[in-house]
Amino acid sequence: MTVAQPASDVFERLESEVRSYCRGWPAVFDRANGSRLYDENDRPYLDFFSGAGALNYGHNNPVLKRALLDYLERDGVAHALDMSTAAKRTFLETFQDTVLAPRDLPYKVMFPGPAGTNAVEAALKLARKVKGREAVVFFTNAFHGMSLGSLAVTGNAFKRAGAGIPLVHATPMPYDERPDGREPGFLWFERLLASEGSGLDTPAAVIVETVQGEGGINVARAEWLRGLADLCRRRDMLLIVDDIQMGCGRTGAFFSFEEAGITPDIVTLAKSVSGYGLPMALTLFRPELDIWEPGEHNGTFRGFNPAFVTATAALEEYWRDGRLEKQTLARGDQVEQALLAVAADRPGPAPDVRGRGLAWGMEFADPSRATAVCARAFELGLLLETSGPEDQVAKLFPPLTIGDEELEEGLALFGRAVRETERPPRSADRS
Amino acid sequence: MTVAQPASDVFERLESEVRSYCRGWPAVFDRANGSRLYDENDRPYLDFFSGAGALNYGHNNPVLKRALLDYLERDGVAHALDMSTAAKRTFLETFQDTVLAPRDLPYKVMFPGPAGTNAVEAALKLARKVKGREAVVFFTNAFHGMSLGSLAVTGNAFKRAGAGIPLVHATPMPYDERPDGREPGFLWFERLLASEGSGLDTPAAVIVETVQGEGGINVARAEWLRGLADLCRRRDMLLIVDDIQMGCGRTGAFFSFEEAGITPDIVTLAKSVSGYGLPMALTLFRPELDIWEPGEHNGTFRGFNPAFVTATAALEEYWRDGRLEKQTLARGDQVEQALLAVAADRPGPAPDVRGRGLAWGMEFADPSRATAVCARAFELGLLLETSGPEDQVAKLFPPLTIGDEELEEGLALFGRAVRETERPPRSADRS
Amino acid sequence: MTVAQPASDVFERLESEVRSYCRGWPAVFDRANGSRLYDENDRPYLDFFSGAGALNYGHNNPVLKRALLDYLERDGVAHALDMSTAAKRTFLETFQDTVLAPRDLPYKVMFPGPAGTNAVEAALKLARKVKGREAVVFFTNAFHGMSLGSLAVTGNAFKRAGAGIPLVHATPMPYDERPDGREPGFLWFERLLASEGSGLDTPAAVIVETVQGEGGINVARAEWLRGLADLCRRRDMLLIVDDIQMGCGRTGAFFSFEEAGITPDIVTLAKSVSGYGLPMALTLFRPELDIWEPGEHNGTFRGFNPAFVTATAALEEYWRDGRLEKQTLARGDQVEQALLAVAADRPGPAPDVRGRGLAWGMEFADPSRATAVCARAFELGLLLETSGPEDQVAKLFPPLTIGDEELEEGLALFGRAVRETERPPRSADRS
Amino acid sequence: MTVAQPASDVFERLESEVRSYCRGWPAVFDRANGSRLYDENDRPYLDFFSGAGALNYGHNNPVLKRALLDYLERDGVAHALDMSTAAKRTFLETFQDTVLAPRDLPYKVMFPGPAGTNAVEAALKLARKVKGREAVVFFTNAFHGMSLGSLAVTGNAFKRAGAGIPLVHATPMPYDERPDGREPGFLWFERLLASEGSGLDTPAAVIVETVQGEGGINVARAEWLRGLADLCRRRDMLLIVDDIQMGCGRTGAFFSFEEAGITPDIVTLAKSVSGYGLPMALTLFRPELDIWEPGEHNGTFRGFNPAFVTATAALEEYWRDGRLEKQTLARGDQVEQALLAVAADRPGPAPDVRGRGLAWGMEFADPSRATAVCARAFELGLLLETSGPEDQVAKLFPPLTIGDEELEEGLALFGRAVRETERPPRSADRS
Repeated sequence: MTVAQPASDVFERLESEVRSYCRGWPAVFDRANGSRLYDENDRPYLDFFSGAGALNYGHNNPVLKRALLDYLERDGVAHALDMSTAAKRTFLETFQDTVLAPRDLPYKVMFPGPAGTNAVEAALKLARKVKGREAVVFFTNAFHGMSLGSLAVTGNAFKRAGAGIPLVHATPMPYDERPDGREPGFLWFERLLASEGSGLDTPAAVIVETVQGEGGINVARAEWLRGLADLCRRRDMLLIVDDIQMGCGRTGAFFSFEEAGITPDIVTLAKSVSGYGLPMALTLFRPELDIWEPGEHNGTFRGFNPAFVTATAALEEYWRDGRLEKQTLARGDQVEQALLAVAADRPGPAPDVRGRGLAWGMEFADPSRATAVCARAFELGLLLETSGPEDQVAKLFPPLTIGDEELEEGLALFGRAVRETERPPRSADRS
Repeated sequence: MTVAQPASDVFERLESEVRSYCRGWPAVFDRANGSRLYDENDRPYLDFFSGAGALNYGHNNPVLKRALLDYLERDGVAHALDMSTAAKRTFLETFQDTVLAPRDLPYKVMFPGPAGTNAVEAALKLARKVKGREAVVFFTNAFHGMSLGSLAVTGNAFKRAGAGIPLVHATPMPYDERPDGREPGFLWFERLLASEGSGLDTPAAVIVETVQGEGGINVARAEWLRGLADLCRRRDMLLIVDDIQMGCGRTGAFFSFEEAGITPDIVTLAKSVSGYGLPMALTLFRPELDIWEPGEHNGTFRGFNPAFVTATAALEEYWRDGRLEKQTLARGDQVEQALLAVAADRPGPAPDVRGRGLAWGMEFADPSRATAVCARAFELGLLLETSGPEDQVAKLFPPLTIGDEELEEGLALFGRAVRETERPPRSADRS
Repeated sequence: MTVAQPASDVFERLESEVRSYCRGWPAVFDRANGSRLYDENDRPYLDFFSGAGALNYGHNNPVLKRALLDYLERDGVAHALDMSTAAKRTFLETFQDTVLAPRDLPYKVMFPGPAGTNAVEAALKLARKVKGREAVVFFTNAFHGMSLGSLAVTGNAFKRAGAGIPLVHATPMPYDERPDGREPGFLWFERLLASEGSGLDTPAAVIVETVQGEGGINVARAEWLRGLADLCRRRDMLLIVDDIQMGCGRTGAFFSFEEAGITPDIVTLAKSVSGYGLPMALTLFRPELDIWEPGEHNGTFRGFNPAFVTATAALEEYWRDGRLEKQTLARGDQVEQALLAVAADRPGPAPDVRGRGLAWGMEFADPSRATAVCARAFELGLLLETSGPEDQVAKLFPPLTIGDEELEEGLALFGRAVRETERPPRSADRS
Repeated sequence: MTVAQPASDVFERLESEVRSYCRGWPAVFDRANGSRLYDENDRPYLDFFSGAGALNYGHNNPVLKRALLDYLERDGVAHALDMSTAAKRTFLETFQDTVLAPRDLPYKVMFPGPAGTNAVEAALKLARKVKGREAVVFFTNAFHGMSLGSLAVTGNAFKRAGAGIPLVHATPMPYDERPDGREPGFLWFERLLASEGSGLDTPAAVIVETVQGEGGINVARAEWLRGLADLCRRRDMLLIVDDIQMGCGRTGAFFSFEEAGITPDIVTLAKSVSGYGLPMALTLFRPELDIWEPGEHNGTFRGFNPAFVTATAALEEYWRDGRLEKQTLARGDQVEQALLAVAADRPGPAPDVRGRGLAWGMEFADPSRATAVCARAFELGLLLETSGPEDQVAKLFPPLTIGDEELEEGLALFGRAVRETERPPRSADRS
């Protein structure tokens, strides 16, 4: 099969070298629908990537599309900073009714700007302002964004180096490790907090992902999250759950932390919150933390009303009842079984399979293998990304709304990509 | 006249106290068209604010709307990270043809994320990476954004305090002052750079707005900008022009720095670049600065294709020829004459009138006056904001596409708001 | 017994509240000799504190005193910045002959200023300059000094808070813990260094005390120090041993790291290096690290020649042969036996006894007990300090030159102070 | 004349490359007395450097020497941390009687460690603690020390680069410039403080030298200092005068700020405070600022009692009456006349002559000239240093106790050094 070459190289001539996904997927995409993207030669690709979690409801979801077109056609206000609008009111009411109230979550809602990193910046600013302290704790392999505040709590050394200044006021701690492992629970973190001589300045907050999507699909156990919430409470630190990638149903429930039964002090949402890939982000926090002064944090694109419209439609369609959540959990089991079969089937050491809901990863002993698997998958018409500090994990992120057959098809293609990237055993390996 | 009260107080109950514009404009807006917004009671407001510069082509511009609806209807890919898409290619080619090539600008184009502050963060990161230095110089009353990197180069003390950490690696310098004034040119800045004993670490870059939109409509003279560009060249500092608010034709030309005949090393664009209020931002830089590694800066909403579509439509409609630029300059003269007349007509010290293109401000001796003027204007059906560190400036920012009659109407309402906020002379004033 | 009251309260009226030792020891000292201090009423105190390690050879050691008086009487140059002087040359040659050469240590010698914290500042500056990185790792309960660079690598929260700015570029790691314990070796540190996603920026250096004198007389095992040296080598970090308190024979050998058989890249010395309590400090480093430019670090009191004279006399007297080292180790055993006997003899949980050479600590389960023991010891005529983040450790630091009978006397007084601070069992305890 | 070569090169082999003064003065000094140093060949050098201000009363001043020998001989306690001692009490009482009380200065006295940089670190820590702010303002060409806190408020780019980390929380402002000049008074500084949009975070303190000794003998006018004190009062910033080099009578009065009639909030002293070149420093502050907790700042060599003894002797000898002050002012006039004569006598542009008391500088148009003058002076037997960011100033710093004939002799040698370093006019210069 021949990969379609871009008809023009304006991307290479004009776009910065910083571009990245386009290098692994050398196609020019044109249209999209549900779980499929089409390049300009109309070649279809099955999407097991979902915009890094921004397209949980699939591409151009027809329900959301209808709402969006209606709004645009009738000249609903498009851009409104943080003015009050009818679209925002409807969104707030729907978010309250379908998300917050049923879960007894007391949060105030802040529109911090359109991107996830804006939501994280706002969360960190608020936490520091509330506690009057600078220090924040994050976890190894965390990813929280590219602006300076978010980057300082991101683990990836390559991304960090891009800052051009030393990143400070942030200390990494070990992410959840298994009790069979070498470090149970919060041994080190708790000890640092307990001692007046530890050298760790008391943090204003701890920021955590329940599943590290960029860091390698590392899954924190519910008991670890509960332990963390308890530690934060005991040590007067705010708990920030960054649910940008794992929220909006990716792990089953609307919020990924629901399974653990915790109530974070601050939550960030973005990616799939608008449901249609429209830039929109939220920072949620307990009402007693809402000590912002009017305008103390602002930004031009906080009031992107078409996103409120699609966000509302998505909540109405998918979160009035528990069907999507149940379906996601069921499909998660399906994916897990398939991946375990793929893993078991291979010669050599079995890759590690892990995930929650519809966020799954397969980690290979040879880190370069994951990249090879994704490249082969692309040739086979399946979009798949790597994850982890060494890109050692193949990440499976299908839309939550994917059809059963599409899911089976994608898993089959994935299995084939794994098989077809096996290196033939070298003679040296046999001796 | 009675101001329509919001039908519900979900905003007060649920939205964070950080909300701001909605406080000065106590209406719930629903739809918009050209230069007018309508609240849910269908009351029209003439918009002299233009989304803080994000709506230079007016609300829901019909040409852009048509392109946007067509794209959405045919299921053009909506969200695509930094994958290559047909919509992005068309945008890049059009940007090259209508903006860069005619101006002999050699820039590479980076999509840094959807908001202006993302563009500034990327610019600062790149400048520091290129020069291997941390220090950056900014100017008093500058506004560059709310994430930590951008906030450190923003002047406003209230916004800075929101950071919750000390903002470092950035030093303020005096913004352009008139030669009749007390500090000519770059006396202090140049002296600091010239001395090995000054205590100013050599900056990687200088970031500047040609007109400070948030800082009080402070207008830098072309010769000052040329002097700054020369200083940067002589002292090996990169010149970053933040054209987020003043670019896309606000001052007449597409880039606000064209009038000065300079070529900045890095340029940031956002707000009106999509033309329709859709979140989109660009960071432009000389090709030799493009030392980014693939993926070194990333973000979920860098590839918001509907914004590429409207951005392309706006370039085709308004920047294939010089008509919009000419019209903006002509209308600028019109605004200036009207404002000078308003200023001259009043008793007491004449307010200061200043601006370029269709960015104008009137600064009152009594800072609270500007707020009063805006409040009265709202009652009269005119949306108008304050600017400056003490909100002492009334800021006039009509859409560039405003009709002649609308412009006259708005200016008349503004004059009335000024007149009707005059305090009657107190007896104490007479004695 | 009545404690002599100060004859005047000029200390309270005029000296800052920051004064500290004088509060626990409410006497006005006047003269001193060997292991004894005398207050102005000529009451003697046996010194088990030794100027926090600055008086390893006792007070006003007669051999050093003679050399000092001779030098001063003949108008030897007293103050000379970093000019070459005969006294400095003699010191350098003697240091080379008695300390560096016999141990095959290749160090260059820097005079960084008179205090220990100056030596640490110079060490950190040099390490960062050599490696071109900002980050430094230190250990929980470390103490390295009070100027900003040193304070940032000091664990004590109370001292850190005195900085008035956030202390950055430094990350704490767990100090040596026993393998029976919960964290073997460098598990966490090594893992952070090994991962590209850990969020720990690669450190320029690691700074460590072999025994933490202020942090609670915590003793690192030789194998842990060897492991640390190996880790530094493998991960391209410089190893700085801060031997300010434990060097100059306190643990037996001249350098406290000799026992572990390691050669740090940088070593700091101060306190007892002059031998007479005269302010003097050294920073030693491998010659290939000596990339300082002339004058890049300076200071007024780097060339305090009387200190060079006493330092030379001390080296000649005590370090030409191995007698002092042997004697210190033997007396260390003696102290250990005595302390274990004291600890075993008591009802309730036995306090922890630990130390090396003549640096010993007894940690009490009830932290306030250590303060009570020191207060009672003072009443009994024995000077003794607490140590540790909660002042929970009684610290025994007799001069290395203490006489046998004095040592026995002091240990007996200590035992008595421990006994006499036992709380009588409360009836509540019995129930 | 042949310069004596060091008899050994242990300095080159063993001492770090950071050594500096010894390079310009290639002799090995052995003894010293009054205004003269002698190398080991007994060659005398007239000292116009005075240990950079640490030897205001000359080398080995006989009155101080007697007190020091008496104290050492009778085994006065040498080292005592911050314990109360008879020697410290006498010093405090004498300092109160001879310095503070006669000048109505209300200061508390802190012993921050032995070096000037320790005094500055303590001053900055206290100011930040009192005000709860991080920012500090310093002045171009300032020199305050080499530890990180002090270095951040030091102007010299070469010294700053030695930090190895970005130096933050400190902003430079223009040092006093003449009203004929281009920047009157505090124009820029005051404007930054006045505006809420300036980007300068409100400083906790301003740190200033009344005469910049290392920065080029730059002399602040009394009215400028008064203006600065007033600005600090009006803007709620603490005023720190670093009197380490200019205090202890160097400019005439005991404190250099007395002439201006101001009372700084915090004052640092070191260098000549012990009078004999013994390491000793003080931080003085208004009693209401004394919010230190016991032990919040500490250090091993805060209680160097022999320095208290010589400091007391110096106060008794020189500061019970006004004779030394008058003599210094008179000799200052004498130096000024001599320097003006030297300057006027030369062909080409006259060097700038400036100073106060016995701190004088001559700045040459050709920066390398000052180094040549000092080198020639050394050959002639006169010790003289350069100053200023480009070493462009020859600095004259004789002991205050210098004899009349010695002063004349030194000035004559200086004049000769200036003459003998004149470049013969080149033919190119004539054309």
